[in-house]
Amino acid sequence: MTASAHLTTVMTNAVAAFRELRRSDRASRAAWLAAAADALDADADALVEIAGRETRLPEQRLRGELARTSSQLRFFGEVITDGAYLEATIDHPNPSATPPIPDLRRMLVPLGPVAVFAASNFPFAFSVAGGDTASALAAGNPVIVKIHAGHPELSHRVAERMLTALLDAGAPAGILATIEGRDDATALVLHPDTAAVGFTGSIPGGRALFDLAASRPTPIPFYGELGSLNPVVITARALAAHRSELVEGLVGSFTLGAGQFCTKPGLVFVPRGSGFAVDVATAAPAVAPQPMLMPRIAEGFRAGATALRQQPGVTLVGGDAPGDGGEQQPMVFATDTSALRADDSVVREECFGPAVVIVEHDGDADLIEAIAALPGGLTATLHAAEGEAADCAALIATLEESAGRLLFGGWPTGVAVAWSQHHGGPYPATTSLFTSVGASAIRRFLRPLAFQTAPDAALPPELRDAPAGIPRRIDGELRVH
Amino acid sequence: MTASAHLTTVMTNAVAAFRELRRSDRASRAAWLAAAADALDADADALVEIAGRETRLPEQRLRGELARTSSQLRFFGEVITDGAYLEATIDHPNPSATPPIPDLRRMLVPLGPVAVFAASNFPFAFSVAGGDTASALAAGNPVIVKIHAGHPELSHRVAERMLTALLDAGAPAGILATIEGRDDATALVLHPDTAAVGFTGSIPGGRALFDLAASRPTPIPFYGELGSLNPVVITARALAAHRSELVEGLVGSFTLGAGQFCTKPGLVFVPRGSGFAVDVATAAPAVAPQPMLMPRIAEGFRAGATALRQQPGVTLVGGDAPGDGGEQQPMVFATDTSALRADDSVVREECFGPAVVIVEHDGDADLIEAIAALPGGLTATLHAAEGEAADCAALIATLEESAGRLLFGGWPTGVAVAWSQHHGGPYPATTSLFTSVGASAIRRFLRPLAFQTAPDAALPPELRDAPAGIPRRIDGELRVH
Repeated sequence: MTASAHLTTVMTNAVAAFRELRRSDRASRAAWLAAAADALDADADALVEIAGRETRLPEQRLRGELARTSSQLRFFGEVITDGAYLEATIDHPNPSATPPIPDLRRMLVPLGPVAVFAASNFPFAFSVAGGDTASALAAGNPVIVKIHAGHPELSHRVAERMLTALLDAGAPAGILATIEGRDDATALVLHPDTAAVGFTGSIPGGRALFDLAASRPTPIPFYGELGSLNPVVITARALAAHRSELVEGLVGSFTLGAGQFCTKPGLVFVPRGSGFAVDVATAAPAVAPQPMLMPRIAEGFRAGATALRQQPGVTLVGGDAPGDGGEQQPMVFATDTSALRADDSVVREECFGPAVVIVEHDGDADLIEAIAALPGGLTATLHAAEGEAADCAALIATLEESAGRLLFGGWPTGVAVAWSQHHGGPYPATTSLFTSVGASAIRRFLRPLAFQTAPDAALPPELRDAPAGIPRRIDGELRVH
Repeated sequence: MTASAHLTTVMTNAVAAFRELRRSDRASRAAWLAAAADALDADADALVEIAGRETRLPEQRLRGELARTSSQLRFFGEVITDGAYLEATIDHPNPSATPPIPDLRRMLVPLGPVAVFAASNFPFAFSVAGGDTASALAAGNPVIVKIHAGHPELSHRVAERMLTALLDAGAPAGILATIEGRDDATALVLHPDTAAVGFTGSIPGGRALFDLAASRPTPIPFYGELGSLNPVVITARALAAHRSELVEGLVGSFTLGAGQFCTKPGLVFVPRGSGFAVDVATAAPAVAPQPMLMPRIAEGFRAGATALRQQPGVTLVGGDAPGDGGEQQPMVFATDTSALRADDSVVREECFGPAVVIVEHDGDADLIEAIAALPGGLTATLHAAEGEAADCAALIATLEESAGRLLFGGWPTGVAVAWSQHHGGPYPATTSLFTSVGASAIRRFLRPLAFQTAPDAALPPELRDAPAGIPRRIDGELRVH
């Protein structure tokens, strides 16, 4: 795959920017991120208007997503200001150790140019200015965003506003650029100067790029978030105690944003004979039909819903089968664990859009076996009655192994940006052992570097003997400042 | 590749052990590791005798390596007792955040059964009881070691002593097992229950297994350490000030263990006309010829040395060309940067054994360009005169990008086991952004897991509200206890 002249220029500039970024200090980078956040907030009216036109998402959602995105840029400024992310570690010499320990100091340093593949369903938060970009820039890497074809005008405007703000604040030219099109996307993953890839999208597309990254003469990390079923388990006691809230909560969650969320609850496990599916199907039509993001996603949903209807043992209990485009009603399917466990059952595949499958089981053993047969996911949710969790140890252990975030009550949609957040999980939820949301997302774009018997002046300030104002482990003891 | 009946049994037992290990506490695991360390130390005489017979390494080296290995098991007990490695993070609810933050708590949890491929050149420290095993067990994973064919008797005895000690201390059956042979090795990497692979060995063998791990329906992390040139740069001023110590130090380092170290200094850059190669060639014969580990490695060295002799622009200035087996003299080659930069130059390939290539350069620009053309390495070393490092900023930046550990003076052989150690570097030095030696090696065998609005009793003790005696970040603030 030959890179276009545009990509070649972008990469040359990114390499030049990286030379400067490696020497940049954390305070400067935090200020750049804040400036970029301010610039996006200042342009909110225009950005939301364009986003609404291109994605058909409602204004309120888009305003919230933009606020989350600018907050996230500032949050990564806080993360690097805090400095614990560097894992700064200092050992003074210990000649009596086996083998002897010389003066040895380690911290994390940025990787180099990072490729970011934007998602269709979060035009702000997982796109040009999203979490991958924010964490890669915070770490000190230049970023090249492959924009999503679903919102090109928005992508270019966000990039332009953000880059202007970054440069005005003193960041090096080449710190941020965009590319488009499948050929340059492939060439970007294969480019010798690309150091890592962040990707949010479908399993087939993500796996193809993962394979490409692994096939390089010098393989690079590929951080993909590819798909998730987000199973929910509701116990008989929880259902008895909170039936109407559970129906209402589920309908709200699986239809939010027309079900176009990676954390949409796709499967809900209930005891056989609970009648829960009918209740959900009865409540779902209260949600007005919503437009899908783009024709390709509407087609994908249509195909997924059709496959579910054709799966033996699966019944459509609510919602119309999707027509040709236009707005989409919620769809509710009912089945049981035997249909889920059948060879090649589509019940085990994500159906991206406003559909949910209610799965009836025959008790704990059957339930646990069904959960264990699912592919890895971003989340798993347990609705148990007050005090019941203690009786669910085996089930909870299985849910823990299946996902990256385990919810006790509530619904998986709505991913907070926080120090403790984890958005990731066993493959295909993500392709790595890292999170893509929250403070530790920055770890994806860093590598360790150790300095042995270095003169103080040759060390990064964070590893010198003088106090550095950040958490460090010195001679084995972690010190906060 | 079909798994043997032995491998199938081993994996079934490992999965069963993992169910218990996930629930094990850190204090128990630290005690198990200490018991294993004590058992190896208690059997030192027999183990060293077997190791000497199988590897032909000298007794003193083997005793030191065993002591390092048992220390390393205890060290990982300290790492998990400390508990910072869990990255325990707690956020209490914050409804005013965008989006709102629920009660959210995250820590790292073990991955599952870990495959470890033992190395030939460290029969203790990178073998059955080595760093990969120690860090994987400490994290709470069962380990399956593919033993190295170069020391099978030793491997079985270490495994038997270690397993007995682990079980006597209360560890679950299935926590440690060995396999052998190429077919089971392949089947182990492809086995659906294998969660990660640690590997130390050659580039061709490691890359083949890396590709296999990436090709799985569910890809798993492959932590390979594949090869390193470990360039050393000696400035004119350093050479003028310390010529004889530099000659002596280099000869000691590149011939240590018959040069069979991943950190052996393979390339030494000096100014043109320095005469350094002749000095090294003059001093090297003082080192007695040494046996190589095994015939296959002796053959590999012979092939590498022959290729170097045939490379245009490379001259053999000291040491005999290797004969058919037997003991091996040190070999010293001389060349310049143009031979190094030639297409497909073998000067850019690791020659595993007691050989060094002295490379003359024509000044800083030429030197930096040559370093930048090298593949990634574990280490890079700069010998500069007192106070000279400040003048070498561009060179140091290039060395930092090329390696995982940067030494100012000294020699790269001898890898201390310490909190601050990093043994890894840009591909092919390692295939990941992690270290394989030192405290943070444990991060390779862990994944994040977040708990949302979990009842206290359903949380791991480290994430409950009560003090946990470990460093935690609570509501954004890192607290040591």
